[in-house]
Amino acid sequence: MKVAFIGLGNMGGGMAANLVKAGHEVRASDLSPEALDRAKDNGCAVFGTVQEAVADAEAVVSMLPNGAIVDAVYGADVIGHAPQGALFLDCSTIDVDTARKVTKAAESADYEMVDAPVSGGIAAANGGTLTFMVGGTDNAFARAEPILAAMGKAVIHAGASGAGQAAKICNNMLLGASMIATCETFKLAEKLGLDLQTFYDISSKASGQNWSMTSYCPVPGVGPQSPADNGYQGGFAAALMLKDLKLAMEAAASVDAIVPMGEKAASLYEAFARDGSGGMDFSGIIKTL
Amino acid sequence: MKVAFIGLGNMGGGMAANLVKAGHEVRASDLSPEALDRAKDNGCAVFGTVQEAVADAEAVVSMLPNGAIVDAVYGADVIGHAPQGALFLDCSTIDVDTARKVTKAAESADYEMVDAPVSGGIAAANGGTLTFMVGGTDNAFARAEPILAAMGKAVIHAGASGAGQAAKICNNMLLGASMIATCETFKLAEKLGLDLQTFYDISSKASGQNWSMTSYCPVPGVGPQSPADNGYQGGFAAALMLKDLKLAMEAAASVDAIVPMGEKAASLYEAFARDGSGGMDFSGIIKTL
Repeated sequence: MKVAFIGLGNMGGGMAANLVKAGHEVRASDLSPEALDRAKDNGCAVFGTVQEAVADAEAVVSMLPNGAIVDAVYGADVIGHAPQGALFLDCSTIDVDTARKVTKAAESADYEMVDAPVSGGIAAANGGTLTFMVGGTDNAFARAEPILAAMGKAVIHAGASGAGQAAKICNNMLLGASMIATCETFKLAEKLGLDLQTFYDISSKASGQNWSMTSYCPVPGVGPQSPADNGYQGGFAAALMLKDLKLAMEAAASVDAIVPMGEKAASLYEAFARDGSGGMDFSGIIKTL
Repeated sequence: MKVAFIGLGNMGGGMAANLVKAGHEVRASDLSPEALDRAKDNGCAVFGTVQEAVADAEAVVSMLPNGAIVDAVYGADVIGHAPQGALFLDCSTIDVDTARKVTKAAESADYEMVDAPVSGGIAAANGGTLTFMVGGTDNAFARAEPILAAMGKAVIHAGASGAGQAAKICNNMLLGASMIATCETFKLAEKLGLDLQTFYDISSKASGQNWSMTSYCPVPGVGPQSPADNGYQGGFAAALMLKDLKLAMEAAASVDAIVPMGEKAASLYEAFARDGSGGMDFSGIIKTL
């Protein structure tokens, strides 16, 4: 299938390469010449503009930094420029309202579109093991699934348009709050004189158990291998967690939802990023507690 | 073994009955005549004063409401009144400092003592399926283990004196924060138009997974059977969660630990209890979000 790919950054570069490996003819576009060079090395055809890349595409995949850019790129260079009937898949993490607005604009021009943000970092993008949370109609999901499957290990239909973004930011809001709660709990346990391995053995089998503890433990040497064992490098950058928490706060405000723990987590990650630690793995916030 | 049991309330009554079932000669004491009558029906010998109950005991088990009462009862009526060499097991949930202080007083008088707070509610106390988190020396733990095993399904050595209390309040602080974060996330998901079963299916297998979601889901009809399916009745009362969170805040203050999510959870459960919902299961806080 001829697939246009817009946005060849840290995540998009690996994703486009996996589409090539799956046998697709990938037509790549990015503002960065270096990113285009890498895409070419990975087997993509490269184009200087989005309009050229999408001109002949059966599907358009985008991986862009924020909602304003997604809105602008689809509005100016994709809708009306891609062939009639092409499928659009936006894998960026953006706000729910913009996701719904762009899909509506695409549908008005007789395209189908899904929002399909990912869970998993750069390693998963390169390895083709991302999880996609997809919002869109049943028909759009059915068309999107095999394309996404070439880039991931799981493709989940979360509901109608915007549901992919909603599911992602809800999950990540809970993750951010749980991570900080887990970090402060380990620090309190340590200060109260508990051996942290012993506390892990107790709490991981009790009602304190959570993914941040048992799959991504923020304490070096305790639990499974995690960024904590590597000086809090790699993994999921605190700045990206902050981005997701801000999207969650925007979404909560737009529907009058009360999210006190999410708010607290957002303000703590904001302070953490402001102090220059945005590039550190998000579990590194334990150092501030 | 001759075991004195002090405090035959909602929890202690069932625990004492399980000691009788295990073949111990239980010598029970409580301020409430009704509690003593029930203990008698369950096969305990009953005594009007603590001093009488402990006079001939090889072990003393206590299940009392707070640290001040534990301190007063052991100081006035147990230490020096129980036979030399008796083992003391305090199963109350109290502050770490008082637990250590009472144990120290007992040791000064040549008794051994463990702090052994429980996880599990009234049903687990009656059914003998509590989990005990035990603080004390190796020798005291070895002596305490078979007695506690008669009342529970798991007996865990958390460390030295006070470690049982520390492990419990750390775990429960994390639980309280995780429960509220889980509740607000489900409410946000709902308001954003997600189907809650679908969101559960996604997040319970992703990085938002936590015990409050997957073992005690606060949404009726979603996840395993839980108090949410029973109008938030039964389970673990919000007032008891608040008690544990207050103990955690005291402990954090005493060791200069920073616990922002625990603090937020404590203030939210305080408001919930103040509004008359202290008797509701702690997952009922979802109704306020």
